[in-house]
Amino acid sequence: MEDMRVTPWEVEGIVDYSKLVEIFGVKLLSDREIELTREALGEDHYMLRRRIFYAHRDYDVFLRLYMDGRRVALYTGRGPSGPVHLGHMLPWIFTKWLQDRMGIELYFEYTDDEKFLYHREYSLDLVRKYAYDNMLDLIALGFDPRKTHILVDIEDIGYLYGLAVRVAKKVTLSTMKALMGFTDSTNIGMVFYPSLQIAMCFLPTELRNEQTHVLIPAAIDQDPYWRVARDIASSLGYPKPAQIHAKFLPGLGPGGKMSSSKPETAIFVTDSLEEARKKLMDAFTGGQPTAKMQRELGGNPDVCPVFKYYEMMFEEDDEKLRERYWACKTGKLLCGECKLELVERVLPFLERHKELREKAKERVEEFLLRNKF
Amino acid sequence: MEDMRVTPWEVEGIVDYSKLVEIFGVKLLSDREIELTREALGEDHYMLRRRIFYAHRDYDVFLRLYMDGRRVALYTGRGPSGPVHLGHMLPWIFTKWLQDRMGIELYFEYTDDEKFLYHREYSLDLVRKYAYDNMLDLIALGFDPRKTHILVDIEDIGYLYGLAVRVAKKVTLSTMKALMGFTDSTNIGMVFYPSLQIAMCFLPTELRNEQTHVLIPAAIDQDPYWRVARDIASSLGYPKPAQIHAKFLPGLGPGGKMSSSKPETAIFVTDSLEEARKKLMDAFTGGQPTAKMQRELGGNPDVCPVFKYYEMMFEEDDEKLRERYWACKTGKLLCGECKLELVERVLPFLERHKELREKAKERVEEFLLRNKF
Repeated sequence: MEDMRVTPWEVEGIVDYSKLVEIFGVKLLSDREIELTREALGEDHYMLRRRIFYAHRDYDVFLRLYMDGRRVALYTGRGPSGPVHLGHMLPWIFTKWLQDRMGIELYFEYTDDEKFLYHREYSLDLVRKYAYDNMLDLIALGFDPRKTHILVDIEDIGYLYGLAVRVAKKVTLSTMKALMGFTDSTNIGMVFYPSLQIAMCFLPTELRNEQTHVLIPAAIDQDPYWRVARDIASSLGYPKPAQIHAKFLPGLGPGGKMSSSKPETAIFVTDSLEEARKKLMDAFTGGQPTAKMQRELGGNPDVCPVFKYYEMMFEEDDEKLRERYWACKTGKLLCGECKLELVERVLPFLERHKELREKAKERVEEFLLRNKF
Repeated sequence: MEDMRVTPWEVEGIVDYSKLVEIFGVKLLSDREIELTREALGEDHYMLRRRIFYAHRDYDVFLRLYMDGRRVALYTGRGPSGPVHLGHMLPWIFTKWLQDRMGIELYFEYTDDEKFLYHREYSLDLVRKYAYDNMLDLIALGFDPRKTHILVDIEDIGYLYGLAVRVAKKVTLSTMKALMGFTDSTNIGMVFYPSLQIAMCFLPTELRNEQTHVLIPAAIDQDPYWRVARDIASSLGYPKPAQIHAKFLPGLGPGGKMSSSKPETAIFVTDSLEEARKKLMDAFTGGQPTAKMQRELGGNPDVCPVFKYYEMMFEEDDEKLRERYWACKTGKLLCGECKLELVERVLPFLERHKELREKAKERVEEFLLRNKF
């Protein structure tokens, strides 16, 4: 079995989510938090029920603060290293649901500096281009521009740097080496960068001039940042940020997350419908080598990325998902058929998304934090 | 003998300037460069003749570029960690002479982030207050506001951060550890900060959108920054900065530079005339224990901070300085008399400076880079 390797910059191998919970020291999401979600927001979400968002720190505390009428906000972001794929959008869909249900602000950070510093061959122009391109995908999902504030690190550094040096003063090199896997050959920009991502947790309080409790919906690999943020928050006079962590949408090959570095196994928003169709039809599955064997032995949806697509993004109905699971398991559903049905869901989604992101081009200014604060 | 310790953050012990030249690998200023100065600027300066500015990198190249009509500029700065003392002003006086003779721009950086990050107990408010306070001392020296552009790191980070990440990407942690003495217990803000001080070397080229050759007049302890700047300049597409390095004005006690951490041995611009007089009259000297012995054996101006004050700041006339030297050596001049004469020079300078810095309060805006670019 491949070794698992999860840092904020690399997610490799088959991800063992229970092990990550142990390593990172976060809590598994329990029925209690889902119950509390229903109490606070009037409904829950399939991503919670199915434990796609599966781990947290103080998500329950956050919900209670919200119910108590305290000032709360959402914060997440994106490292603009290339075009967005479906896996990137997964946590944003949940984030939008939270914003809609709670009616609260979302602060969204595009970390162009991080991606410039990490990728040897990337220029500032390139990461800036990706940041503005990737914004379209966020806006296309329908976030409320009055409550959604987008910040781009390099251009908007004036909002963050004063906070970031206050953060940085509290964090030693040895802490960063231990948490982020930095070595002596890491460049000094990468070493400082976490200060910005952490400072963002405190920016809502600064901008609103009122203690603001922040919830960060994000993939689990980002946890090291929030651990530091929580450690130093009170000494800087800010509330500890709460977190809720998602699993990764798997790639269409065997094992591993959907990754930009294996473009044939990820569906990008820039893919043509034909490309997307081909990738889906070529996907690895949990099926048997032949239709005959599949009918006799049944498939294995638990290791099948096609089934994961339904589970994580393209089948919100729990009952129908269960039916599909058992139809596969019992050999009633063949992979070709299952893939075709998925194509019929993904392609319209992709087509509509492409239209919406075209329209989003005219609306970027409404979302930029610098136009509002 | 005390150990010498010279890093950009600490200068301790008796400074051995020849050793520093060796350690840092800079060139001693020779008669050739002074000759070239006269050729380029029509005159030289006592700080060159007396080797107060005593070491350099490419100062000669810089003068030739100036004579060839290439675009050149000056850059220096100040870490605003407290009130300014005479030792801080020494290189500024020479810098002003360069600006006046050459008619070129000076970019001046107040590194409030650096001082906040270095001093455990300092707040952002405090370093900001010092930055604006210390500006008055610069402006009071008579710099031309049309050609002098002041930048404060935290407030003006928008001008620097994009450049700084390009710098940071070229500099590894191990380089910084070796050059700056950082350890694993250094905070990550300090580790990144050099990127900003280095980025400033390239800012004139960016702002003027034309290759600009920069000369940095600064105390010798700042050399590690410029070494890195020179190493990476061409790979970033900028001219290598040239440097010219000053010795430190000594403190009024025995040995060591004038230091804010030994306030009784430094003359601050905030000192009352009475305080300044007392510090000067109480100064350590190279004299004999008694007047009788002094008359018989003579004094030692070479180790005397009072003589250094004349040499470095308060006696521009070479002939008169030589007379004072020999009058001391031969016992004709007693320390009390010599100190009294110094008081008569320092106090009027200080009094006038206090007036000028009061007037400077109304002129700060004319100097701020952000009001011009």
